[in-house]
Amino acid sequence: MALADTRYSQRRRTLAARLAGQRIDMMLVTNLIHVQYLSGFTGSNAALMLSKELNPQISTDGRYITQVAEEVPDIEALIARNCAAALLSQVEGPRRVGIEADEISVAQWEALQKVAGEDVTLVPVRGVVEELRLVKDPRELESLREVAELASQAYRDLLAAGELAVGRAERDIAADLEYRMRKAGAEHTSFDTIIASGPNSAKPHHGAGERVLQRGDLVTVDFGAFMGGFNSDMTRTVVMGEADEFSTEIYEVVKRAQTAGVEAATVGTALADVDRATREIIEEAGYGEYYIHSTGHGVGLEVHEGPYASSSGEGELREGMTLTIEPGIYVPGRGGVRIEDTLIITPGSPEVITRVSKDLTVL
Amino acid sequence: MALADTRYSQRRRTLAARLAGQRIDMMLVTNLIHVQYLSGFTGSNAALMLSKELNPQISTDGRYITQVAEEVPDIEALIARNCAAALLSQVEGPRRVGIEADEISVAQWEALQKVAGEDVTLVPVRGVVEELRLVKDPRELESLREVAELASQAYRDLLAAGELAVGRAERDIAADLEYRMRKAGAEHTSFDTIIASGPNSAKPHHGAGERVLQRGDLVTVDFGAFMGGFNSDMTRTVVMGEADEFSTEIYEVVKRAQTAGVEAATVGTALADVDRATREIIEEAGYGEYYIHSTGHGVGLEVHEGPYASSSGEGELREGMTLTIEPGIYVPGRGGVRIEDTLIITPGSPEVITRVSKDLTVL
Repeated sequence: MALADTRYSQRRRTLAARLAGQRIDMMLVTNLIHVQYLSGFTGSNAALMLSKELNPQISTDGRYITQVAEEVPDIEALIARNCAAALLSQVEGPRRVGIEADEISVAQWEALQKVAGEDVTLVPVRGVVEELRLVKDPRELESLREVAELASQAYRDLLAAGELAVGRAERDIAADLEYRMRKAGAEHTSFDTIIASGPNSAKPHHGAGERVLQRGDLVTVDFGAFMGGFNSDMTRTVVMGEADEFSTEIYEVVKRAQTAGVEAATVGTALADVDRATREIIEEAGYGEYYIHSTGHGVGLEVHEGPYASSSGEGELREGMTLTIEPGIYVPGRGGVRIEDTLIITPGSPEVITRVSKDLTVL
Repeated sequence: MALADTRYSQRRRTLAARLAGQRIDMMLVTNLIHVQYLSGFTGSNAALMLSKELNPQISTDGRYITQVAEEVPDIEALIARNCAAALLSQVEGPRRVGIEADEISVAQWEALQKVAGEDVTLVPVRGVVEELRLVKDPRELESLREVAELASQAYRDLLAAGELAVGRAERDIAADLEYRMRKAGAEHTSFDTIIASGPNSAKPHHGAGERVLQRGDLVTVDFGAFMGGFNSDMTRTVVMGEADEFSTEIYEVVKRAQTAGVEAATVGTALADVDRATREIIEEAGYGEYYIHSTGHGVGLEVHEGPYASSSGEGELREGMTLTIEPGIYVPGRGGVRIEDTLIITPGSPEVITRVSKDLTVL
C-alpha cells in the first residue's frame, strides 16, 4: 500500500482548525486545485468533504478509480459522477456546511440546496483554502525553483541556438521554446506562450502569430512551464538587430522600475507599496499612462494566485510567499517592453528564481 | 476601419429573439467562450450585455484596449476591471437581466446583486447560448475540418517518422506530437496529450509520463489541436511489437463498437441511442464493466461541449452538430483500448473528419 504524504493531512488539520473558528462544521471543497492541495488528487472531477472532526471524504468518477487509490491511499473514495452532490447527500444534520463561494456556480448552488438534508445549512465561504496556499512550504518552494530554472534554461538555450531571430515567425519561435521546455520535463505550458514582436509588443496579452520578426523590433517573450503540479512565469523583452532611441529609453525605464520592485519585495512590505515602487519610476519618466496593469502576483499550483501586488492590493508580504515583479510600458502602434521575474519572499533580499540577465539584449 | 463580421450580429439577433421568449429584457454574458461566439472578442477578461432591443455593450480591461477595437469594431467598449459589474451598473430599471447560472459564482452573484439598481432583477438562466452553439455554421465546420486534418496529419507523420516506438518515454512522444501540430499552425493543444502505455492504458485519463514503451504494450494516443478558435479531438490505440490475444480481442471489440456508434450517428437519432449502439457491443462481448465512460461529446470552440452521447443523454442529433464516438475498454493492471473519431452530423452517413485508419496497428 502506498503511504499517504503527511503534508496533505497536516493541511487538512490546519483547515479544520480554521473551520471551527468560522462557525462551520464541515466544508465542501470543489475547486480542483484545492482538492489537490488538501489530498494530492490530480483528476479532473472531484470533491472533498472535510469536517472539524477530521474525517475527510473524497469523491471522483469511474474514470479515476485506479488513480484516486494511488494518489489518495488514506481516504476512501466515493465513486460518483456528481461528486459534490454525492458527498453532500451523505451529511446528516444539524450541520453547517461551508461551500466555496468563488467556485460554486449559481446553478450548482441551487442543485446542492436540493440535495442538502433538512437540517443542513449551506454557508458560502471565501478564501479559506486560498489563505493557506499563500505561504509555500520548503518542498513547494523547491518545486517552484526547479520549474523556474527549467524555463530559464529553455530561454537561454533558445537564444544560444539563434532561434529568436529576424525572419522567423512568432509562432515558430513559440513552438521551439515550448518544445525545449517539454523535452526538459515540462508537462505543458503554464499559459499560452507570448511572442509579441514589433507593434504586437504594445499588446500585453498578444499571443504568438504569423508575424515575422524584423530588424528594429522589440520582442516580448512571456512564458511558463508546468511540472509536477507547479508553474513558472517569466518575461524578457529583446531588440532585433539594433535598438533605436525609443526602445532603449523605455527598456531602461522598465528595467529600473522592475529592479525597484524586486528591492521593495521583502517581508512586511505592503503589497500596494510594491506596486507603488515600480509605478513611481514609470510615472516619473512620463510613461505612467502606458503602464496599464498591476505589478505582480503569486505563482504556485496556479500560475496566477495570491498575493496580488496592485495599487489597491491589501495585506503585506510574508516569508515563503512568491511574487512576480512585471512592470511594462506599452505604446500603441510603436511597441512595448515588459520584464518579469518570479521571487520567493525572505526576511532579507528576495530570492529571484528567474535566473536570466535583464540587461538590454540586442539579437 | 475594420468591418465587423456579420456572423456575430446575426447570432446576437437570434439570441435577442430568444430572450423575448424567456421574459428577459437583457442578458449579461460572462462566459468568455460565449462572449467570443457573440462578438468575436478573444481576450481573457470581458463581459457582454445584450438586450432584446439589440444594443450590445462590451466591456474589457485596459490590457485589451487595442485588441477589442480590432476584434469588435462594431461595438464600443467600456473599459473596466470588473466587466460584468461595470455593464450592470449602467442598466436603468425596471429591467429583468438574465445572468448565466452555470458561469456566475455565488460570490459574483452576491456582488452583482449589490451593483444592480433598485428596479433591476437578476434572473439565472441556463443553456441559452449553449443551445445556439450546438449547430455549427458552414464556416465553423470548415474550421473544424481543418484543425482535425492538422491533427490527423501530425499523427500520421509521427508514425511515419518512427517516433512512436519501443524504448521511448511517453512524455517524449507527446512532445514530438505536439511540436508537429504547433509547427503546422496549431496555437496550442486542446487538452493535455495522453500517451498511455502498457498498464497506463487502463487509465482513461492518464497523461504522458516517464514510462518507457515496451514490446507488447497497448499505447493509447488521445490528443487535440486548437487553431483559429476551434478544437480537434481524436484517439488511436496501437500495439508495440506484437499483439497478444488479449490486446487483439479488446481492440476488435472496441473497433466494432466504435464503427456501430459512427453508423448510428445520423440526423434524428436520439443521443442515448448512439451511446447504446457502442455499449451493447461491448456488453455482449463481456466487457461492459470495463467501459466506464460515455460515448461522446460535441467539439467546437470548446473541446468538450454539447451534444453529449451518454446513456442518460437527452435530445437527438441535428444536421451540423459535431460528435465524438469514443468507446473504450479498460482492464486495470492489464491495459486498455480507446478509439475516437470526430463526426459532423449529416442527413446521411456522418462525415468522419478524423481521417486515420482504425485497423489494428502494430508498430
